[in-house]
Amino acid sequence: MTHLNHTHDPAARSWVDSANQPGCDFPIQNLPFAVFRHHSGNEPWRGGVAIGDQVIDLARVAVAGCLDGLAHEAALAGAHPQLNELMALGPKAWQALRQGLFALLQDGAEGEAVQALRGCLTPQVAVEYTLPVRVANYTDFYTSIHHARNVGQFIRPDEPLTPNFQWLPIAYHGRASSVVVSGTAFHRPWGQALPPGASAPVHGPCARLDYELEMAIYVGPGNALGEPVPLARAEGHIFGMGLLNDWSARDHQFWEMAPLGPFLGKNFCTSVSPWVVTMEALAPFRVPAVERPATDPQPLPYLDGPGNRAHGGVDVQLAVGLETAQHRRQALPPAELSRTSFRHQYWTVAQMLAQHTVGGCNLQSGDLLGTGTISGPTPQEAGALVELSHAGTQPLRLAETGEERAFLADGDTVILRGWCERPGAARIGFGECRGTVLPAHAPTAAG
Amino acid sequence: MTHLNHTHDPAARSWVDSANQPGCDFPIQNLPFAVFRHHSGNEPWRGGVAIGDQVIDLARVAVAGCLDGLAHEAALAGAHPQLNELMALGPKAWQALRQGLFALLQDGAEGEAVQALRGCLTPQVAVEYTLPVRVANYTDFYTSIHHARNVGQFIRPDEPLTPNFQWLPIAYHGRASSVVVSGTAFHRPWGQALPPGASAPVHGPCARLDYELEMAIYVGPGNALGEPVPLARAEGHIFGMGLLNDWSARDHQFWEMAPLGPFLGKNFCTSVSPWVVTMEALAPFRVPAVERPATDPQPLPYLDGPGNRAHGGVDVQLAVGLETAQHRRQALPPAELSRTSFRHQYWTVAQMLAQHTVGGCNLQSGDLLGTGTISGPTPQEAGALVELSHAGTQPLRLAETGEERAFLADGDTVILRGWCERPGAARIGFGECRGTVLPAHAPTAAG
Repeated sequence: MTHLNHTHDPAARSWVDSANQPGCDFPIQNLPFAVFRHHSGNEPWRGGVAIGDQVIDLARVAVAGCLDGLAHEAALAGAHPQLNELMALGPKAWQALRQGLFALLQDGAEGEAVQALRGCLTPQVAVEYTLPVRVANYTDFYTSIHHARNVGQFIRPDEPLTPNFQWLPIAYHGRASSVVVSGTAFHRPWGQALPPGASAPVHGPCARLDYELEMAIYVGPGNALGEPVPLARAEGHIFGMGLLNDWSARDHQFWEMAPLGPFLGKNFCTSVSPWVVTMEALAPFRVPAVERPATDPQPLPYLDGPGNRAHGGVDVQLAVGLETAQHRRQALPPAELSRTSFRHQYWTVAQMLAQHTVGGCNLQSGDLLGTGTISGPTPQEAGALVELSHAGTQPLRLAETGEERAFLADGDTVILRGWCERPGAARIGFGECRGTVLPAHAPTAAG
Repeated sequence: MTHLNHTHDPAARSWVDSANQPGCDFPIQNLPFAVFRHHSGNEPWRGGVAIGDQVIDLARVAVAGCLDGLAHEAALAGAHPQLNELMALGPKAWQALRQGLFALLQDGAEGEAVQALRGCLTPQVAVEYTLPVRVANYTDFYTSIHHARNVGQFIRPDEPLTPNFQWLPIAYHGRASSVVVSGTAFHRPWGQALPPGASAPVHGPCARLDYELEMAIYVGPGNALGEPVPLARAEGHIFGMGLLNDWSARDHQFWEMAPLGPFLGKNFCTSVSPWVVTMEALAPFRVPAVERPATDPQPLPYLDGPGNRAHGGVDVQLAVGLETAQHRRQALPPAELSRTSFRHQYWTVAQMLAQHTVGGCNLQSGDLLGTGTISGPTPQEAGALVELSHAGTQPLRLAETGEERAFLADGDTVILRGWCERPGAARIGFGECRGTVLPAHAPTAAG
């Protein structure tokens, strides 16, 4: 997984100038995938690859014949209105496409194919995005021990961590139909909640609306029903990663979730970033899995292996921004609510995938796995408002506007960002995942 | 919903003689839908309608032009390899198709269209079935108060029922990819469990494998994200019902499910019957919703209405059979484990659908909703082994063979059956939903 090749060379530059600018999310070493069309809407959705401030149109690449062999086949699969077919092809095809585009995009590259590729570029400012995949199945994990402890202490002060947490990557099934792409606004949901001290629940708009900073994992080739994927082969089934916001109605969630888990508190909207960064692009940022004190439970053999221990983690830096209506009116930059890294996650992506299939559950190409809220080891690194505001008891004060937030207000836009940076490697960015809270429907419309 | 028309006339007979036999599941008043092909496999999957021991091939009906107008359009939609498109058309189209077929199938019907329809029949013994829908989303409810109390007493003896149970139909998201059609065998799943008294979990084959008797609800037209479906309009979004077995690995489930609910304990296999009985065919069997003592919580206004109270229930009689390897060797009939009726369910199908959408979650045509285990008011009416065997402490003795079962053994076949019967109405059957437990994979294959 950590095998590096020439596509990771930090000195490589592209003839697309914007890709060479410091701080650019999409240099030639990244080449992430999305599904896009011209913002006029007068075009079919199709796969694209980011380079600097441009999108490479995979449908045009396939028609123009810029690539050949497996790389061409992968471009053809990527020309569909969702990337499931490309993801199904497997690592060899993805690598061929990535290396083929890298060669054509390098500074100094020449020839007919390079000329043809120039005709396949569209400025990102001229396009809009849709979901990168047809989400057949969405699973949400719960793999940050810091998040689990932070939230657990509100519910079970004596035992914040459930006994199973350190033994298996906990997960539950999420709702596939309500996954939306970054930029989609949604209405504050209605639902049932039990007000503090009340003996009967009420039906009303969510009073404790929250975000959750997560990463998205996209499944490449699936597995057959009844055939587990061993840990050592798990990463061969992962195409790449993006950003995910698991919007949560805390008041609805906490009332409904005993005994079968979250349902309506989570299924009104889940946002993902348009760009999916490949595991290959992330190779320079692999780090050891979180070390476990010898006195802590060690993973059972099916969840343990030398590769996972040595480089099962990924050091993705993450930040959450909040833009209120007042920020927009005053043209202020978003407030930063927290920063952390995905490297602190207690369970690795390979362990999540191995656990998901250990009972024989069949994953399908393009399936979406959420990592669960990513909270780092210090309180400021928490990935949700319920943690940052101590279950709403200590509202945050936004420095720029002086506004207070225990939970989200109507008009709030939450912006997740992710990027990888370290000396000796090119920066790999994820772009952003944003969403805006609209007011709840009027009571009559809610039935 | 309880409006009856001539298709419910119990005196109506068909020229398909087998449809007129006493005890037949598929008389002319039923006309349920499935997806089938000739068992040679040399044909495309397509929709079909049962009449007696025959299947009406909707692709041939559409090509032959047996019907016209909306009924023809519905037959065309039903010719696809899954019924999602037909379900999306809505009640008017379903009724037109049902009434059109009824008219052609009636004893004494004559004319070219009747002759053409004769050419569209295939014996059921010559066909095989696949899933009736492409399951985009699968939700499992938990709406039997008797089941909730029976299971709750093992986990929370002081408070078997969680405080929310009588206030809302509890549900969680299930796994869509591992839903299979009746007749599919599956391997006993591997997973983690905490043996009684142990301080660390073990990884091994499920030791407490169970079934759950449920009904399947299929969504017709969906709703847009953010737009709840009010209770009074909920049944217009339901196409029909079938049988569902929510196979459960109790040892894995009880170890993993805190705090986010069942995951691997439920997602290795879920079986559904091939036949989907329309809500229209069930109209003669609508009954009042379960009456709630005045001292019990009454539904909040958004979950309450006169129609739901008067005829929100459905009196479907249900039975669970168990056929062990020894039954097969000795050619004995299956043992009957329990019988009950869906009429005892605490929440109605309309309440389930209204609750699912109250926060804005978008349902899609063909979505599958499980009702949750259906257990009746007496102990013998329990819909799962964990209840019948008191969490495994009181194994059942099978009268025919003398075998004992606390949980399922390898080679066991579980057979769910459902039917509606009452004086003055034709019998409406659901056929059966069966599945067989294969041994767990050898340790190496499980990774």
